[in-house]
Parts: sequence; structure tokens; C-alpha cells
Amino acid sequence: MTEKKTLPSLRGVVAGETALCTVGKEGAGLSYRGYDIRDLANHATFEEVAYLLLYGELPNRTQLQEYCARLACRRALPQALKEVLERLPRTAHPMDVMRTGCSVLGVLETERSFAQQHEVADRLLAALPGILTYWYRYSHDGVRVDPATADASIGGQLLHLLGGAQPNPLYEKAMHASLILYAEHEFNASTFTARVCASTQSDMHSCISGAIGSLRGPLHGGANEAAMAMLEQWSNPDEAERAILGMLERKEKVMGFGHAIYRSQDPRNAIIKAWSRKLAEEVGDSRLYPISERVEAVMWREKRLFANADFYHASAYHFMSIPTELFTPMFVLSRITGWCAHVMEQRQNPRIIRPSATYTGPGPRAWIPIGERP
Amino acid sequence: MTEKKTLPSLRGVVAGETALCTVGKEGAGLSYRGYDIRDLANHATFEEVAYLLLYGELPNRTQLQEYCARLACRRALPQALKEVLERLPRTAHPMDVMRTGCSVLGVLETERSFAQQHEVADRLLAALPGILTYWYRYSHDGVRVDPATADASIGGQLLHLLGGAQPNPLYEKAMHASLILYAEHEFNASTFTARVCASTQSDMHSCISGAIGSLRGPLHGGANEAAMAMLEQWSNPDEAERAILGMLERKEKVMGFGHAIYRSQDPRNAIIKAWSRKLAEEVGDSRLYPISERVEAVMWREKRLFANADFYHASAYHFMSIPTELFTPMFVLSRITGWCAHVMEQRQNPRIIRPSATYTGPGPRAWIPIGERP
Repeated sequence: MTEKKTLPSLRGVVAGETALCTVGKEGAGLSYRGYDIRDLANHATFEEVAYLLLYGELPNRTQLQEYCARLACRRALPQALKEVLERLPRTAHPMDVMRTGCSVLGVLETERSFAQQHEVADRLLAALPGILTYWYRYSHDGVRVDPATADASIGGQLLHLLGGAQPNPLYEKAMHASLILYAEHEFNASTFTARVCASTQSDMHSCISGAIGSLRGPLHGGANEAAMAMLEQWSNPDEAERAILGMLERKEKVMGFGHAIYRSQDPRNAIIKAWSRKLAEEVGDSRLYPISERVEAVMWREKRLFANADFYHASAYHFMSIPTELFTPMFVLSRITGWCAHVMEQRQNPRIIRPSATYTGPGPRAWIPIGERP
Repeated sequence: MTEKKTLPSLRGVVAGETALCTVGKEGAGLSYRGYDIRDLANHATFEEVAYLLLYGELPNRTQLQEYCARLACRRALPQALKEVLERLPRTAHPMDVMRTGCSVLGVLETERSFAQQHEVADRLLAALPGILTYWYRYSHDGVRVDPATADASIGGQLLHLLGGAQPNPLYEKAMHASLILYAEHEFNASTFTARVCASTQSDMHSCISGAIGSLRGPLHGGANEAAMAMLEQWSNPDEAERAILGMLERKEKVMGFGHAIYRSQDPRNAIIKAWSRKLAEEVGDSRLYPISERVEAVMWREKRLFANADFYHASAYHFMSIPTELFTPMFVLSRITGWCAHVMEQRQNPRIIRPSATYTGPGPRAWIPIGERP
């Protein structure tokens, strides 16, 4: 069918089918393959949810053990990839490093047929924390970490490689919840990028490199970093409240509030907020968490805007000593599951995604030889 | 507005505006910023067309000279990028190398603000031939080429670096036409990938890396390579005709024919066909060009399918001694102009591209503790 009206953001246009996720049913809910996000974040490990998204069902105990073992075996990075990462400077944008690391992995371990797609997805899930931390620790500390750790979970491996020591078990639990919350969110821009790429029947690494590039955009993946940058300016809740009221008066955007799809609340907020509170207690914070709570209350009181998944992620990640510039890459380590699952879905539809455009340029023009041009 | 029907390929959905290009008006034409593709391919240089697409108007003589000089100054590659390219094996997929080279350039020369977008686009246009040939010649011949040549054109530089000698002037002219023909084509899948990425306000290198990844897909950029692989199986026109008739009977796809948008002809075909004929004479070919003509005639006679831009590109590139596996990367060296111009257009619209999906998965499911799963 032909759609006459130009729809430059495709808002409300149904661009495909998915069995992965519902977002914003009754303006509020989120489910992965039928399971409520609250059940998943409160009871599951991230690896359980990755399995659910990529393989369709929650694993039983044997399947989960095998899956975790399979992922752990796939943590080591090829020597050529490590040599590439060593050539990316400390000042690099961490999302550019993630995009490049994924692309290089695709050069070295190319997906030759779709029959390999699960293997490639598992490998990406297992390798990305090593890609991020190998570059980060080498460029910042001159340390060559060995990504092939024995950590029980992806979140644990990440914290271990980043901090250089066995992580606090509470942090590892918080990472499970965080990675679960960010894992999947229907046809957001990065996922849709991956699906457009997949519609050409391209390889998994191309689709994921494209998705990482989209998530890098400040309108998409950068909100938790921006929220942190904002929150750390203030030393107490009263100061934060005055600043927020000033921002609202000047019509400045307050990061971490509202959502394109959710209308009344973001179901991920209560979960990450509870984790932020627990972590604040653990680290003895008496500043960042109370400031965050005040900002949330002021935004609701003044604008009826609710905190989204990104807002309390800022303080939660900060309490776990994750550098602010790595907040968006953390999102990648999680969303890789949803992206890969969407690529696999899109591949079942053999038609290329190719919309049309309204032409707004000049009408037909006659050729002018170069000597006669103004 | 809400669109109820699922439109999985977005065919006919107007996803935005563009002043760059019209495709298939009356089912046949192609224009860039109002200029007919035949005028451009017959009279302009590729650099003139690049300027037209990126800056909006055809350059006068001074502007073109300055532009060519500016591009020539931007051919050298950073040492770190060369060291990365040396680590990509000979067996790499050339499109994976292009995607990686673009991504690494984005790490080393990050676009920090949209005010740099023209500078970044020019740099990409100037650097990509060097990225391709540096990797290709190093991995295949052990030669470290110096991309900073003094060649007058991008096509000339490419042929020079690939062949190791000053190119035949006729080939250089043919390259202008070829690069012009492939430069721009509205909202095709790779361009749309770039635009979805750009809608998040991400950087140019992310958008282009994503576009390269989409062009890599066999449903998109691979047709000229596939046409070549098909044509070189046959030793004369009669054998080709028998084989094509067999393929049609078995309902196999014949690459290089028909088009998603054009209905009666692809306006690029006559132009590249004329170049293929000229190049066949130049190299003394009496096999590939006559075979190509026969295949074209049989496809029209049997199926009323016309040759598209890719079909005679196969023989034309082959006559210029371009390795078949580099045909899709040639497309990148050209389309980089259209992609960058589309990214700049998309950036003027501050809304993220975020369609919806029809949910086809399971209904709400209660959480099952792991010990109770089947």
C-alpha cells in the first residue's frame, strides 16, 4: 500500500513483526517473550534472559549451565583484535571503540552463513566486555587484561576486568538486573538500524556495528551519561531542586525523564531505583542518591514527568565505580542480546526494507558547461 | 498518524524528504539535484557530481579546482589506521575491511560537532580508496602503497594504487562515469540505514559504517559481483543463451536484471553499456561483451526484464582489471557521496526514527523458577 503522507520519524508506522517484546502496553508495561520485566529483573540472571531472547524459552538448569559455560569459553579475543584495540587512543569515544571492535571481530570471524547466527551472537555477547575493557585498561592504565576470566557472569567479568579484582557480589547482582533491564526494547532506532541492515541479508557483525553506531547518538543511548553529568554538579538535594527549577524555567531538557512510548511510567525505573538505593547504602553514599530522589520528585511535581530507565542507572553505575564515559557501552553489552534476536527475526523475511521519499529539490535542470557557470 | 497494516519492507511508505534525487519518475528516470543522470555521466567528472551532491550546486571552474585539490590533500592515511589494515587478513571480506576502515577513521578523526560534517565527508571521500587499496595490496602483494598520490581524480587514484602504475586515460574516464552512476539513489536500504543512524544525531562515521554494512548484503550491493561470477562461466554467446534459458526454466534468479523502483528501464544501463563496449574494444575482448549482450537480449525476449546498472558494470570493471571481489567496495567509493549528503539532510530533522511493530509472541506468562522448568 502507498502512504501519501510523509512520516519522517515513522512514529506509529508498523514496520514489521516481532515475537520478542511488548513495550508500553497500557502505556506502562514491558515484557520479553511474554515474561514481565519485573519478574525477569527480580528473579533471573542476565544469562537466563539472554537465552530467553536468543533461543525463545527460559533455560532449565542444565541448559543454563551449558550456556554459561559456552559463553565463558568464548571470552578470549584474537591476537589481531587486541593489536587493533591497542592502536585506539585513550581519547577515543568508547562507542567508536565498541563499533570498531565489533567490526574487526567480523573481519576475523566472519559469519559465512546464517546457520552460524547463534554461534556468532553468543560470541559477540561473550566478547564485547573483553573488547571494551581491553581497550579501556590498556589505553588508560597500560595494562593488558586477559578477557578469558573464570567469572560466573558477564556482569561479573566486566566488573572484574574494569576494577582489576573480584567484584563485590552485590555489584554483580546489580549488574544482572541492569543488563536485563536494557536487553530489549522493540523497534527503537538502534534495533531498527540492525533490522534494516539485516533486510539486505547482510552479516551479523554489519548489523550490530550499525546498531552500535545508532545507539551512540545523543538522542538514543546517551541519557544515562547525561544524567550523571547533571547530577554530579550538585552537592545536596536543595541545591539540585533550585537548579532543576531553573532548568525548567529556561526550558532546558532534563535528562533521564519521560519516554517516547511509555505514557505513565517506565517499568524499569522502580527496579533500578531500588538497586541504586541498595548500592548507595553499600558504598555509604549520602549525596547522589538523595539528590536523585529529589530530582525525581521535583520533575513529577512540576511537570508530571517520570524517571525513565536511564535516570537511576546513572547513580547505580557510579556507585559500582563504572566510569561515566562507559555508561553507553554498558548498554551495548546488554542490548547485544535484543539486537541479535531481532536480526534473526528479520532474516526470516526475505524482503529488503526500502521506503520512499518526498522529493523537495529543484525541478529538471539543463546541463551547464563548466565555463558557463556563475 | 497510526498505520494499522504491517509494512515489513516499508515499500511505498514515505519515510522522509530529500532534495537529492528522483528515482523512477515515469518508471524510468534518475536525476541528482535536478540534473539528468545522462547529462552528468556524459559530461561531468565524478568530483563535480560529488560537489553537486554534497554542496548543492555544480561547481564553477575555480570551485572544482579547489575541491579537487582539497580532496587530494586528504588522501594520506593515519599511521594507526595503516597498522590496523595490515592486521586484516587477505581472506577478509573486502566490505568488512571498508566498514572497519571507516570505523577506525572515526576513532582517530572523530566528528566532534556537526559543524565539521563537510570536512568529514570530504575526508571520507578522499580516504576510502586508500583504505581499500592499502589493505588489498598489503594483504595480497605485501606492498605498502602510499595513498597520497598526485592523481587528478579519485577513479585515477584507485586504478593507480590497484594496478601499481599510471592508469590508462580511457579507464580513468570510464571510472568517472561509473562512480557518477552509483553515487546516489534515494532511500535505498544502505542510505536509509545511514538516515536511521543519523536520526539519533550520531556521528558521520557511525552512519557510514552502518551504510557500508547494509550495502554488503547480497540483496543490495552484491549484484555486479554476482553478475560477473555468472558471466565468466561461459565461453561464447550460444552457451550463455542455453544456460540462461535453463536458469529461467528452473526459476533461478539471473543477477543484474530488473529493479525495485524502475519499471521499464534503468537509465544507468545504456551509459555503462556504452562504456563496457568501449573498454571491450580497448582490451580486445571478443567474449565477455558479446556474452553480456546476448544475455541482455535473451532476458528481454523471454521475460521483458531489463538490465540494471549492475549488469554491464561487471564486464566494464573486469576490462579495467578490477578484481571481482572489489566490485562492491567500488560502489562504496561512489555512494559515500550520496550517503553523506543524506546524513546531512537527516540531521536537519531533530526527530529520531522509531517505528512500531506488531507483536506476534506469546501472551503474558508467569515466572517459573528454574528448578521447575521442563
